[in-house]
Formats: sequence, structure tokens, C-alpha cells
Amino acid sequence: MRHTKVIDLLNGSSLLQEITAKGWVKTFRNNQFIALNDGSTIHNIQCVVDFENFPAELLKKVTTGAAIAVKGTLIESQGAGQKFEIQVKSLEILGESDPEKFPIQPKKHSLEFLRENAHLRVRTNVFGAIMRVRSVLSYAVHKYFQESGFVYVNTPIITGSDAEGAGEMFQVTSLSLDGNAPKNEDGTINYKEDFFGKHTNLTVSGQLEAETYAMALGQVYTFGPTFRAENSNTSRHLAEFWMIEPEVAFNDLDANMDLAEDFIKSIIRHVMEKCEDDLKFLEQRLKDEEKSKPQAERSEMSLIEKLQFVLENNFKRVSYTEAIDILKASKPNKNKKFQYIIEEWGADLQSEHERFLVEKHFKCPVILFDYPANIKAFYMRLNEDGKTVRAMDILFPGIGEIVGGSQREERYDVLVEKMKALDISEEELWWYLDTRRFGSAVHSGFGLGFERMVLFVTGMTNIRDVIPFPRTPQNAEF
Amino acid sequence: MRHTKVIDLLNGSSLLQEITAKGWVKTFRNNQFIALNDGSTIHNIQCVVDFENFPAELLKKVTTGAAIAVKGTLIESQGAGQKFEIQVKSLEILGESDPEKFPIQPKKHSLEFLRENAHLRVRTNVFGAIMRVRSVLSYAVHKYFQESGFVYVNTPIITGSDAEGAGEMFQVTSLSLDGNAPKNEDGTINYKEDFFGKHTNLTVSGQLEAETYAMALGQVYTFGPTFRAENSNTSRHLAEFWMIEPEVAFNDLDANMDLAEDFIKSIIRHVMEKCEDDLKFLEQRLKDEEKSKPQAERSEMSLIEKLQFVLENNFKRVSYTEAIDILKASKPNKNKKFQYIIEEWGADLQSEHERFLVEKHFKCPVILFDYPANIKAFYMRLNEDGKTVRAMDILFPGIGEIVGGSQREERYDVLVEKMKALDISEEELWWYLDTRRFGSAVHSGFGLGFERMVLFVTGMTNIRDVIPFPRTPQNAEF
Repeated sequence: MRHTKVIDLLNGSSLLQEITAKGWVKTFRNNQFIALNDGSTIHNIQCVVDFENFPAELLKKVTTGAAIAVKGTLIESQGAGQKFEIQVKSLEILGESDPEKFPIQPKKHSLEFLRENAHLRVRTNVFGAIMRVRSVLSYAVHKYFQESGFVYVNTPIITGSDAEGAGEMFQVTSLSLDGNAPKNEDGTINYKEDFFGKHTNLTVSGQLEAETYAMALGQVYTFGPTFRAENSNTSRHLAEFWMIEPEVAFNDLDANMDLAEDFIKSIIRHVMEKCEDDLKFLEQRLKDEEKSKPQAERSEMSLIEKLQFVLENNFKRVSYTEAIDILKASKPNKNKKFQYIIEEWGADLQSEHERFLVEKHFKCPVILFDYPANIKAFYMRLNEDGKTVRAMDILFPGIGEIVGGSQREERYDVLVEKMKALDISEEELWWYLDTRRFGSAVHSGFGLGFERMVLFVTGMTNIRDVIPFPRTPQNAEF
Repeated sequence: MRHTKVIDLLNGSSLLQEITAKGWVKTFRNNQFIALNDGSTIHNIQCVVDFENFPAELLKKVTTGAAIAVKGTLIESQGAGQKFEIQVKSLEILGESDPEKFPIQPKKHSLEFLRENAHLRVRTNVFGAIMRVRSVLSYAVHKYFQESGFVYVNTPIITGSDAEGAGEMFQVTSLSLDGNAPKNEDGTINYKEDFFGKHTNLTVSGQLEAETYAMALGQVYTFGPTFRAENSNTSRHLAEFWMIEPEVAFNDLDANMDLAEDFIKSIIRHVMEKCEDDLKFLEQRLKDEEKSKPQAERSEMSLIEKLQFVLENNFKRVSYTEAIDILKASKPNKNKKFQYIIEEWGADLQSEHERFLVEKHFKCPVILFDYPANIKAFYMRLNEDGKTVRAMDILFPGIGEIVGGSQREERYDVLVEKMKALDISEEELWWYLDTRRFGSAVHSGFGLGFERMVLFVTGMTNIRDVIPFPRTPQNAEF
């Protein structure tokens, strides 16, 4: 007999029917009430066993974490807390779970402990909810772009180019590290002998390749893993993370900001519609977590209120120059409460400044634009002032930078000059320059760090808790 | 004024309105007819210029590959070949394209030449069509699983485990190759000093991690890049490719075959609905290509007929044992036409045998199942006969193996014994074994090589032509 998913049992459509349910035991109360979950929903189905009809030996094996199959009738529940329950007629243990050994017991575990058990933590309510939300959010990304006529492009993971400069890169090789790798006459490694015939790395961004596709297909997006070999042990950084990078021909910076804002609102709206129960659960988790904090540090809004707020308010668009004026005149700058005091135009903004702007000054998502050219990447379009570029960063409360984007420099001569100034090899990026040689046009795009968006939507605070198997310095277990 | 996409212009909804179109020139005929494309569709919009009203200097720059913007009125076309066209009132060159230098001229280029210009080949009709189809097919994958209640899981790309044994792996490292990497006392590399504190590779499969998630969320799938460091210079192998791996708790091998067949039919149905024009174009391309082949080597069915055939016919399910009997009795085996003659039960099937079964004997997609244990991976469930495992491969005409899957060995003791026999480290896979220690259950899954599916759907014959920037031995350009 085919089993029915818990989410379908809970909607009651098979009321009074004989059904089979399969899943894992969450709890077993009074030798009578099994809370059964199969991952299809945050909610459990209650399975009621009349213990007099089952061997004690069998019931002993109904322990937290055990996989079981029950057959019985779906009935309306007389108890509080659930509308439907299963009156169990037969019970089979599929896989036992020794309560002395199973690490995930029905009690509160620390997130640190659960990280060490990343293969089992998804069996908890919290991580089940996070991973369902993450999945629905991924789908919302594809749905948004596909329905808007964007073409999904899988840009390469292994790249022979290291010119993008978004960060430190991991090397990919088939050569041996023991000193026996083939060498050139000058003693350097002979990468012609490596698998790809050259030095290769893991990509830090698919943008440059995506641009070549936007210059043919018009609207494209990437959604794939990217990498940083940076020794950042923070709650906001991963060595391996997923990034979304749309790139659109004929979009200027304003259109780029419009796209980013519309996109972000659309995926948040989608997840609020589809993940109501999981978000309610995560909202409560956050409330409980914040109870241990002093009043001043607690969120003013609940999780769902915060998501609603993003939907209902325009992102505040502020030029870098305006932002610097606000920061220079701010209390924490005058009182020297900032670690990095803003002295003058041209300063790179630190996380503390971004948080001040978003959380204290504007109290809403902020789009900063027109940054100084010399703190931004080579491919950003130079403004007429000759000193700022058409860059934009979107800053979110509690998260900081969630999007970085720009209008791209479409003028061949200006781009080449910039590359020369920064010592970026024209030979290596010949193909990128070709997009400006043949049929160049205004175009723009941005990158959104997917895990940061998942952090924001789930109300979690450590990025290691919103990706199944986090990769960080000294950690590649599983 | 916002521009209107070519696909929207061609549906005629803005008939007699003033519109702006932007895109790239495909051809410019008689100094009068510009075929303009913006990647939103395989079709071009015809832009009619009255050359007497435009400076000759400007019209000279309307060359293949140039980016232009035109303003004008959308009118019904009097000419053959298109329903609507633009009567051009103003014309702007956004980016020139020197016809002496632009590699993509309006003539037939070889696929080999286009591979060397992977950044520009997407501007051709063929590659535009392929990449739109690829994108829609990706979306169909997500749509199918999401609508069936599966959770998308991003399994790690960088892995500390190399036990899966699906193929040779690329090493990922931050250490230097020049012989100066830190060493242990015994002279081996001290990987504690590497970024992750251990030897790490690029993943060959997300299956083992996906299994841990299926044991909590019930139905999960991955869709991400995987890697093989194998020196295979064939038209069917890539060093970097995208794989789809669903994994389902409580599914046995029969349910796994049902899922795979339903999934494949569903995504083909979706792409046939959404990409009609691109598929018609690709069908014609294939016909043209086959004209140069002898009659016997041409396809019996057209591209779209072949896709329709897959939808309308059940995949033939054949046990390995039956397949061996068929092959032993086959003409090419008796006449020694096979390179590898099938002598007895236990032989590993080669591509030539698979193709015989699919293309000559059954003439439809075939699911082979219950393979000898010793030619399959350690995690596959042993049958009661003690010598075969619950494996399945799906074989497609023209492609060969497109899916490999199995019911997984859910019994802890049997799995450990198998790992011991194959010298697979229990210590390294402690977390995988945990899924069998705590709440184990019957479960199954499969892997589908995405590019092979794109090959099948587009009728292309070299896998390097269905991924934007192919990675193969000695090739990681772009």
C-alpha cells in the first residue's frame, strides 16, 4: 500500500480512510501518542496506539529518530493541538534509533553542536524549516527570472581566468603537491602538464561570462556556487556559497536598481505565500532566542513583520556622496564610536557604517550608488565626473550588503585604459574585451549572495546555519 | 522610451504604435531591410529603413553584429516571411561591429570554430536556440520536483571525502605546488595547513549527502555542477557538468524507475510546449546536417518525432540477466562485430552493447536493472540472490546512459561488510553510516547528467555544444 505524506494527511482529505504513513518518530508520549514527521511539513501527525494491542518489545523501539510505518484510520482528533490523527492498527519499525546514541534528542541543542552534526541536524524542526524555506526561495529565483524571459546560464566553475579580483581563489589541479609537479626551465610549475593545460581556479563570480551571454540573449542570469579562499571566520562568510547574477543588455543603473528591488520583493512575497507555517515557526524561534538578550538588542519587528516591511516600502536610494555627508555628521562618527572614523569623501564604507545607515538612520533597505571609482572593480562604468562609477550596493538590516552591482563600462577605450591602470591582462580577457569590440551596448547586472538572503528570510544569524554543509576555514567535513 | 522585446513585437500587440527596439543586426539587405534580434526568440524583426532619409555614413555602420536602437511604427508587413515589421523613423548605432574583424558572419561556421569562440557563438541562431532550450529544461527540472514536494538541496562542491568512487577527482588547494607546501615528518604533505585542514577535492556526486537529507525531508533533489578529472576526449564527456540527483525515502527500485520515467517525460513535455520555435529550428538543423550522411546513418525520426516517441512509449524495463541473454544471441556478438564480445553473465556492458539494445533491439528507451554487484558501487542494495544489486541505468537512443540509479543498501551490517570488502574507510564515512544507524529506511535515487539530456532534446551530437563554456582536457578558456 502506498503511503500518504504527512502534509496530505493533515489536510484531512483522506478522513475515515485506511491509510499508511511513514516517517521518523519525533516523540512518543505515554506509550500512546507518536508524533510522526516525514519532512513534508513542519507539523507532525499524531499516531494513537492502544498499547494493550501491541507487544511491549515493539513499542520499546518507538524512540526518537526511529523510522516507522503505521497503518490505520485517519480520524478527527479529540485532543487539543491537532485536527486529525491516525488510529493505529499496525505498526512496523523500519529502522531503529538507539536513544543512548542518537545525538538529536527531543530537547534544545546548541546550533554549534548541530553544526558538527550537519548530516543529522536537518532532522530537527529548525533545520527542517530552514531547508524547506531555502528550497522554496531557490525556486522563487528561477520562477522570477524565467517568467520575465531571462535565460539561465551555467557559467563555468573551473576558470582559467583570475582577473576578476573579487577575492582570493582556490586552485584546482591534477598535479601533485609534493614537489614533483613538472617544472619549466625557470623553475616555475609547468601548467601545460596540468589537466587543463593552464593554471586553474574555482570561480569567484560568473559575471564576466554572463556578460558575453547578455550581449546575445539580452536578459540572462546565473545561479550557482562561487568560492572565496579567504580566511574569514565570521558569521557572514563562507568559502563556498551560492550566488545569483542577472545581467541585462540595455539596462542602465536605474533599471538595474529597479530590477534588483522588484526581484527581491518578488522572491520574499513568494516564500511568504508558500512557507507560512515554516516562517511562523522560525519567527517564534527568533522571539525565543531574543528573550535572552537585553531589550535594546531585540528586534523591533518580528520576522514576518520585517519581511512585510520590505515588501511594503521602497528601498531608499542614496548616493555614496550623500551617505558620506550623513555619516560625517552622525553621532557615532562625532563621538568616535565608529571603529573607522569617516574623515572624507573616498573612504571605503565598513560594515558598521552600512549598519548605521540602514538600521539607525533610514530604518529600511538602502541602495547606495555612484561610488568612488578607486574602491570599485575595473568593469564599472565611469560617470561623467571622472571620479565615480555607476556601482550600487543594496544594504539590508541585520545583514549588511546583500547585493552588489553596477552598470558595466561598455566603452572599449575606457575599459582598456582602466585595465591598463590596474595591470589587468588584456591578453587573458581578450574574450571579455570582444563584447566591447563587437556590438557593445549599455548593460548592467548585480550579484546577490543567496545565503545572505536565506539568513534574512529565516531570521537566523549565522550563515553556517542556512547552507546544508558549510565550507569554512578548517572545515570541509561531510 | 523603454524598448520592446522582439518576441513581443512579433506577436503584434503593439501594432501601429510607436515603439523602440534594441538588439543586434543579423543581416542588412539591399540597404533597406535590417533583420534585428535581441535573443528573446529565434526570430528576427524586420526593420525597414528608407535609405534616402538616413546618412550613408550611418547606414554603413549597420553591419552584422552591431548593436542598434531603432524607433518607428510597428506595421503589418507586405513582404513574405514575416507578419509584422518596423517602419524605422530613427536609427542609432549603439556599438559597431567591424565586418572585417567580427568572427561571426552570416554564413555557416563549423561547430569546431564556434567552440573556440564560445563567448560569441551564442550570437548564432543555433547556439541561441540551444541555450534557450537548456534554460527552459533547467526550469522544467525545478518545476517538476518543486511541484511534487521535493526539497532542493545544495550539496557541497568542495568535499573532504573521496570515497564515492564515481571517478577521478580534481584537488582543491590553497597550498603551493612548487614543493614548498608544508610537510609531515614522513615527507607527506601536511594538509592540516591547507585551507580546510584536510585534503579536499571537487565533488563527483552529491548523492551521499543527499541521502542524509532524504532521511529527514523525505524527498530531495540536487541540481549542481559535478566534476571528473578523467582524460576522456569524447563527444559525451566533460570535466565539469551539471547533474540532477533526486533521492527519496521509502522508494524501492520500482518506485525509483517510475519516478525517473515520469520525470524525464515531464521535462521533455515542458520543453516541447515552451520551445516550439527553437525546437523546429534545431530539427531543421539536424536534417540539414544529416543530408551529408549516407541514408543508413540518418535518423529514422525527426527531432520532434523522437521527443514525441519518448513521451508516448513506456521505457522498456529489462533485467541485466535478460539483456546478457539478448546480447549473447545477437548477430553482432556472433559475428564478432562487437569490439567486446559478450561471453558470459557478469560482463560489464560497453557503449556498443547499450546502443545495440536501445537502437537495434528494443528501439525505445530502456531501463536495465539488477546488475551484478561487483560491477556497481558499494552503496547499492544487495538482492536476495546475493550476487545482484538493485541498480538501474536508463539508456537513450543516440546518447547511451542518461541515468544511473539504485535502491540504496539500507542495512547497516550489510553496508559495513561491503565497505570492508572494498576497503572504503568507515571512519571517513561515519556520517553516511549514521543514516543507517539511526532511523534507516528503504530509499532510492538516481543521477541524470543534464548535458546528455540537453543533447537528446536539441539533437546536437557533441556535448561541448550544449554547455556555455565546456571544460575538457587541455581546455579551460574563458
